[in-house]
Order: sequence, then C-alpha cells, then structure tokens
Amino acid sequence: MRQSHLFTGTRREAPKDEVAKNASLLIRAGFIDKLHAGVYSYLSLGLIVFKKIENIIREEVNKVGGQEILMPSLHPKENWLKTGRWDSMTDLYKVADSSGRENALAPTHEETVVPLVKSFVQSYKDLPLSVYQFQNKFRMELRAKSGILRAREFVMKDMYSFHTDENDMHNFYETMADVYRKIFDRVGIGHITYKTYASGGSFSKFSHEFQMVTDAGEDTIYICDECSIAINDEIIEVQKVCPVCGKDKFRKEKAIEVGNIFELKNKFTEPFDFKFKDSDGKDKIIQMGCYGIGLGRVMGAVVEASSDSLGIIWPDSIAPFKLHLIDLSGKKGGEEAKKKAEEIYTKLTEKGVSVLYDDRNSTAGEKFSDSDLIGIPKRIIVSQRGLEEGRLEIKDRKTGEVKMITEKELFEMF
Amino acid sequence: MRQSHLFTGTRREAPKDEVAKNASLLIRAGFIDKLHAGVYSYLSLGLIVFKKIENIIREEVNKVGGQEILMPSLHPKENWLKTGRWDSMTDLYKVADSSGRENALAPTHEETVVPLVKSFVQSYKDLPLSVYQFQNKFRMELRAKSGILRAREFVMKDMYSFHTDENDMHNFYETMADVYRKIFDRVGIGHITYKTYASGGSFSKFSHEFQMVTDAGEDTIYICDECSIAINDEIIEVQKVCPVCGKDKFRKEKAIEVGNIFELKNKFTEPFDFKFKDSDGKDKIIQMGCYGIGLGRVMGAVVEASSDSLGIIWPDSIAPFKLHLIDLSGKKGGEEAKKKAEEIYTKLTEKGVSVLYDDRNSTAGEKFSDSDLIGIPKRIIVSQRGLEEGRLEIKDRKTGEVKMITEKELFEMF
Repeated sequence: MRQSHLFTGTRREAPKDEVAKNASLLIRAGFIDKLHAGVYSYLSLGLIVFKKIENIIREEVNKVGGQEILMPSLHPKENWLKTGRWDSMTDLYKVADSSGRENALAPTHEETVVPLVKSFVQSYKDLPLSVYQFQNKFRMELRAKSGILRAREFVMKDMYSFHTDENDMHNFYETMADVYRKIFDRVGIGHITYKTYASGGSFSKFSHEFQMVTDAGEDTIYICDECSIAINDEIIEVQKVCPVCGKDKFRKEKAIEVGNIFELKNKFTEPFDFKFKDSDGKDKIIQMGCYGIGLGRVMGAVVEASSDSLGIIWPDSIAPFKLHLIDLSGKKGGEEAKKKAEEIYTKLTEKGVSVLYDDRNSTAGEKFSDSDLIGIPKRIIVSQRGLEEGRLEIKDRKTGEVKMITEKELFEMF
Repeated sequence: MRQSHLFTGTRREAPKDEVAKNASLLIRAGFIDKLHAGVYSYLSLGLIVFKKIENIIREEVNKVGGQEILMPSLHPKENWLKTGRWDSMTDLYKVADSSGRENALAPTHEETVVPLVKSFVQSYKDLPLSVYQFQNKFRMELRAKSGILRAREFVMKDMYSFHTDENDMHNFYETMADVYRKIFDRVGIGHITYKTYASGGSFSKFSHEFQMVTDAGEDTIYICDECSIAINDEIIEVQKVCPVCGKDKFRKEKAIEVGNIFELKNKFTEPFDFKFKDSDGKDKIIQMGCYGIGLGRVMGAVVEASSDSLGIIWPDSIAPFKLHLIDLSGKKGGEEAKKKAEEIYTKLTEKGVSVLYDDRNSTAGEKFSDSDLIGIPKRIIVSQRGLEEGRLEIKDRKTGEVKMITEKELFEMF
C-alpha cells in the first residue's frame, strides 16, 4: 500500500483524556481513533492488524470443530429475565423502542445462543458441538480508562460448547486452554501470558484465566516459573503453594486478563430447559462451556507489551505489513532512487509481499519517526547515496540492527 | 464440509409470525434464525453466503480506492445534536448509561465519519478520499415484516466520499453507480436491478436508487426497457417520459431498493465545519457523497428473486458451496458407494472445490428435499446402482437438468 494513499497519518499527540499507553500509541500511529470514552474506531492500519488477529483465532478454533455464526446485539428482555441477568448485571445497556418494548444490548451471548442451539439439538447424537462468532459487545464501563484494553464497545470472539456430561465439557475446556495457548503464542504474547489458577472452578477445584504480564494490568498474579503457570490473589491467600509443583516460590507481577474459559455447566441451559435425550432414553440437561477473547484487548495488550520510546514494535504475525519501504530520494537529484523505490515496490507487491511504501514528499526525519511509531518489523531504505554504492539499508525495528544489502539479497529474503 | 458436522438442519416450518418469503425459506433451509421481530442470527450456511456478498462488495469498492475502516455503534449524543438528527430521526435508538450520559445507537455513520475524516484532512492535496466499513446498523422499525429485507439490526456496507467541489463529488457518484452495477451483476440480480431515477437530486435534476424487481417490493417503479433504467412514482407523475430516451413506454413493476447512492454535498460537512485549504489559499467547505448496501437485504433480495416451490436457487457467485455431494449408499449393501462418496469428497476438497457432503444417515427422500431447499447450484449423487453402471448423477438446481457422467468427467468439470 502506498502511504500517500492512506487518509490517516500520524499525530503528534493523543487526546488529553487518553491516559492508556496502548490507545495513546495506537492513536498517534494512526491505527485507531477515539470517538468518546471507551469507544474507538479502527482505521486502515488498525483494521489490518485486527483482521490478522481475527484470522489467527478463527484458524485455531476451526481446528477443534468450532462452527462460525453471527448473532445479533439487540436481545429481547425476556431472555435476560429468564437467566436473572436483566436485573443482576450492572453493566448491561438497556434500550427501548418507542412502543416501550425493551432490549438488552448484548454484553455476551449466552441468552441468545442457548435457545438457538436448543432449537437444533434433540439427542446425544447431536452432541458435542461448539459455535462461535466475532461480534460487538457492549458493556457500560463508567470509567473507561484503559484504552482498548477495556472498552464500552468491543469485538469479541465468543465461543460456546454443548455437552452430554460434565466430563466431556471438562475435556473440551482443557482443549480450549490449549487452543488459547496457541493463539497467544501466534499473536506474539505467549512468552508473557500465563494460564492462571483462580477460585470457583465448577468441575475441578480451580477455574482458569489467561493473564499477560504488563504494568498496565489491573490484576496481580503470582508466577511459578518452574511450571510456567500463575495463581491469582485469592488462591495464594488460601494455599500459598503452586497447585502444580507444590513449591512456594513465586514472582509477583501486574497482569491483564487476555482470555477466559469457563465451565458454565447448567447455569444457562437450566433456565432455558435445554435437555437432550441420552442413549439410555432419559432426558438430561445439557452441560455448557464458554470461551472469550476480546480482539481489541489482544491488540492493546500486544502494544503494551511491545513498544519503546519511539513507538510500537509489532510481532511479525500481526504486523500491518511485513516491510516498510522508504523512498529517501529527497526533493532534488534523487530521480534514480525514486525510480528504484517504485521498481522495488512493484516487484515486492507482485511477489505477494505486503509492503507499506512511504512514497510521500516528506523529510527523511518525518519518514523515520513515522516509521518507528508505526512499528513495521523491517524497514528498507532506498537512497541516492546507497544506490551509488549498490546497496539498500535494511533495519530491524525490534533490535535496531542495520545491514547494507544488495537488491538481489532483498529479493532472496522476501 | 460434512453435513453431519453442521449443528443446524432444515426445518419443516418457519415461525408462524414470519410472513416474508426470504426469511421463511432461509429459516427453513437453516441459513438464518429469527431471534425476535426484525432481528436475525446468521448460521453457518448463512454466514458463508453473507461473507461472499461482503467480499464481492469489498473487491469492487477497493478498485475505486475505498479505504476500509470500522467505526463504532455507540455515538455521543452531541454529534447527533449537531446535525439535528437526534430529534428529527424517528427510527433512532437512544441508549443511556447509568450516569445519564446518552448515546445514539448508529443507524448510519455520517455523525462519526465526518469528524473522523476532518481530523486528518487539511488541504486540497488530501482530497478526494473515500472510506467504507461493514458495520451493524440499528433502526427502530416498529413493524418489521419483510424478513431480512428490512431488519431492526443489520450489517451495511456504508461508504463516504469527500471532495473539493461538487463536480468531483458528482464524478465519483457516477463511478459508484457503475460499481453498484457490477456488484449487483456479480451477486446475480443485475438482470432485474434498475438504476432508478428519483426526485431530489442535489447536483443534477435527479437522484438515483437501485431497485430490484420483486413481488416482495414496497416500491413501484416504471421501467423503460429500451434504456434499461427505471423511474419512480414521483418522476412519472411529473414528466411522464423516460429521462434518457424521451419515450413514454414503461413496464410497471413492484421493486425493492437494494442500494442507494447520495450526493450529500455539504449537508453533514457544514454542521461540523469541515473545511479544507484550496489551491487558491482559501478555506472551502468539503463536498460529500455516501453509498450504502445492506448485506442482509441483498441476500434476502436474491432469495426473493431466485427460488421455486422446493426451495432456494443460489447464483454460483454467492452459493454457500459449489457442489452438493450426496451419498445415497443407503443402510445396507451400499459399502462401495459410501466408500466412493468419501473418496470423491476427499479429492474435491483437496482440489479446493467447495463441497457440502451429505454424509448423514438419512433417507434418500430427506436428502433430496433438504438439497432442493438449501439450493446449491449442482448436485452429485453417488448411488450403488449408478456405480454398477460406472456413472454418477449430476443435477442442475436451476434447470433441473440431469446427466449421467463418469468420475473422470466430474473431475474435469470441477
């Protein structure tokens, strides 16, 4: 993509009311825009990253049989009365039409997915099954201060699984824990993300959440480096040792939850009387699990985890582009370099390499600082002086390492 | 995809309160589910069709330089007060949080996109530009009776273009009319969709809408078959002749609007004081256009236009699968046919052909009626008797034409 074609640009400053590092950097780099507190737009570059995260999640959940659907946001009040959450959920947005009919603006989709799946399931032969979607969620956060880590409106991958018994539910729950492990590895935060033991497990003693270590985190976790797991506040108060190895050596860190997996059991199937006919001919209640990842939260977490004083440092897997090609031909006498930059851009694009090409009439300083802020993994500089030596400069955004390479070497690398 | 893996199935009947043909067929065939009046879920098969429509639209608008973004649904009241639509738009959902702060639940996005684009545009050099998104819209339809043709919540491709002057705006408007022509051709309704002249053109005498001929339509259009255009009620009353050829021979039809293009001029840029510095150094107001297509409406319109008494007949371009492979091996003695069906499914899948494979233990009658209802363009039947003759049966859903072909011929076709 030609940078001159992008309608967005970088900004010197984020809005004054934006205190979160993730949103500040993403706004300054032109990935997102703040509409009002806790509500953001994804701009061209941001949407590319967003879709890459979405595709990684989709690939991994499809592998374990997830079926993608799309459920609506306007839910009838009756479904929420059935589960008791119309009154109990404090961050639920309620919206009425002019005839007085009330709707919940969905913060999660159990109230919709249970009656939907119920309408198709009769017998044990129809189970297990799991469905998921990428859909907006609305949560009434009164003090939204964490940028896209905790928004009032955000897209979530929410998955729901349905089982004949608790054992099958629990096995799938463990499968999903592995799926989440892979997803966090692939988006580049696996090394700082811990399966964290929490209280309130409905099947085993523990429930689990995935926590990423970051100063921006709202939670505190205690990491057992021996086992690469963590426990949360509640657990450490009760048992004081690692539930895996039994040792009591922990590293205390601030962290943010980047994914959750729940054994819901019959919590939502019971209110909707969702039963199936088992192989013994008896009607039994369905067991259910649910599994959530917020896409914006993952994106924000990556930025919290991977940036420096100059800007964002994207992991390869979700970077908006593989290469940032910079035309440094300057205003005068750089015709040859300009021509060469265009030629390289065309060739790379034809080869299918994703390139952001800075073809703008800006100063070298502006181009470099924008490039650092945007954070594409590799930068190629085409300058008149380099060309005279038959060389291009390639720089690694993360390590800062600079090499001079020939054009031939460039096309061998990409 | 194996049909046995789908958690959905066909239904004998649509909900009793569902009067629209499009929703009835799509619900019975397992493409969508009705949550409540005017609000639907897209199920596995429906979401595949939905994404195909989305991709066709994306490809065509990208060709004319559209930049994809994603704006939120929760809009601050202030933006809607600025344009006057907080009070004037009767189908606007309003939602307040517990602190009393009010939001509009976006039925369209001018109130968001104008201040967003304004923050990046200073001079004539930044123009023209166009941005678009695929995003939920919410409209308070009190009597939602047209299925997915007119829903209370629906995904729309909404595009907004920004220009230095009316002439540039008008040229892009004409470009978008051509883009819409291509989109409707590609989704299979081009031959019954007419660019329809309406009153209230802000630049020329006319505005235009794209109307598809259907008995389910709410509008009446007058088609000039000579010019392949139409005029609406208002126009025929005023001028009684075709605005293109001047003749007065019309075919009167019921129709539904499947796409709209508007010359907004300064209607929304003025309230936000969105100006640019022109090449003459003067600050001028930006001219704007907008262009909408509802994805569900297109899907519903295709179903209204293309079905028979047995079910849906999908056009190739947006069919959920290219082929419906039916294993008709039966319960006994069909081992060879079963094995052959599995083998053909594997081979086609490896070749990248999209196949729905009916591997269920159902009767031939059930499989055939489900297949007719689902409406995949070609059906391949693998039966024991056919195999003994070395033949497979291939049936065209639209024409009903049946041919006996060899396996070799099948793999030459797909």
